[in-house]
Amino acid sequence: MDSAASSAVGVGDEAPDAGFYDVVQRRRDVRAEFTGAPVPAATLTRVLGAAHCAPSVGLSQPWDFVIVTDADTRLDFWRHVQRERQVFADSLAGERAERFAGIKIDGILEASVSLVVTYDSARGAPDVLGRHAIADAGLYSVCLAIENLWLACTAEGWGMGWVSFYRESFLRELLGIPPDIRPVAWLCLGPVSQLQETPDLERAGWRQRLALADVVHEERWDTSAHGALGSVGRVGGAVAVPSP
Amino acid sequence: MDSAASSAVGVGDEAPDAGFYDVVQRRRDVRAEFTGAPVPAATLTRVLGAAHCAPSVGLSQPWDFVIVTDADTRLDFWRHVQRERQVFADSLAGERAERFAGIKIDGILEASVSLVVTYDSARGAPDVLGRHAIADAGLYSVCLAIENLWLACTAEGWGMGWVSFYRESFLRELLGIPPDIRPVAWLCLGPVSQLQETPDLERAGWRQRLALADVVHEERWDTSAHGALGSVGRVGGAVAVPSP
Repeated sequence: MDSAASSAVGVGDEAPDAGFYDVVQRRRDVRAEFTGAPVPAATLTRVLGAAHCAPSVGLSQPWDFVIVTDADTRLDFWRHVQRERQVFADSLAGERAERFAGIKIDGILEASVSLVVTYDSARGAPDVLGRHAIADAGLYSVCLAIENLWLACTAEGWGMGWVSFYRESFLRELLGIPPDIRPVAWLCLGPVSQLQETPDLERAGWRQRLALADVVHEERWDTSAHGALGSVGRVGGAVAVPSP
Repeated sequence: MDSAASSAVGVGDEAPDAGFYDVVQRRRDVRAEFTGAPVPAATLTRVLGAAHCAPSVGLSQPWDFVIVTDADTRLDFWRHVQRERQVFADSLAGERAERFAGIKIDGILEASVSLVVTYDSARGAPDVLGRHAIADAGLYSVCLAIENLWLACTAEGWGMGWVSFYRESFLRELLGIPPDIRPVAWLCLGPVSQLQETPDLERAGWRQRLALADVVHEERWDTSAHGALGSVGRVGGAVAVPSP
């Protein structure tokens, strides 16, 4: 963690000490439970510090964070999101349309703070170590920072929601983001009344969580993944390094 | 966490209880410190469970994980990575080339286990809630899962490294991954002798970490970001919801 963030830890705020897996399991994509209370700047700095600690391809740290609290900006964005909600709603039929009608998709106005995260492909360029073969590796790094932020919010007792019902061009214009910088996320964060035990979309009957075994393959791609990994025994180990 | 992962927790393995921020700060992109010891299947299941707990657009969970322990597969991939290393090396000149020559870029042979993470854009399609305006939102979800995995490895006392010196087409062929599934990462994981305090690329003088203040903007994009957020005071709050 950089010095700015480190220095903020413990300044008037109880440092959280929940177990890591507990944080992972409690994390939710929050829309409805934000209290909207103003937040301590120290806590906001701390969760941003966690994001900024994320790994990045070639240590490029290609992310930026725009803190948005202005009411007019948030209202403009919220209105745009409602229009995009309608675009998606119009693509649905029958039972899917009915279910979607009851699902809240954002907490832009209710959350204490919004945060826009962007990707700058020029940072560290042209010699970004690890990106010559996979151009998207920089974009991936930004997402890693977002997950750090999400878990940090959870560890702090806050909630976070990722809003993706928007056009990048609209957001770029709204915040004056240059053409070579790509908006990656609009995030809503802040204190919440509670975190739901079950994801909103699962409670709404939109989609169920899969079993881990459904997404684990062994050695090669298997079209009927079954994740035969047992809970006992040992697997793997080093491979003999070939002589040069 | 899904039931498969939950049932593995606590079966013969000490559950970690490090504070969340400690895990975030200790996490490193590991290449050189893998011990190569075979790993308990229960621990591997637990870190995979953390990845599978990640948020995903529309609860699509578009990730798959291919566990690779086979020596021949790893050797084939390692040889490909050495060729791609040379491609990047050839693009550098002078002092950059010299520095790069001393940097280790992978622990494919030394790490206990390799893990390939992929993206399936068809999962949950066509009605993926939250993806109609941003096609890459599914890809972003896969990265969130990777960061959960990375932090979980750290919490377990393991290390993890992300190898990105490869061509997706090579990896697809190597593991029999179908054309409509995109490989996103080759990860190396397992026990380590230590985690470095400073990132490898910073120690090698390749690139330095930025200050948090350099990447924080307030309200709008500011080309000279300075992150004026103080450590005291309160910011933000809810916005009045407009009448329909």
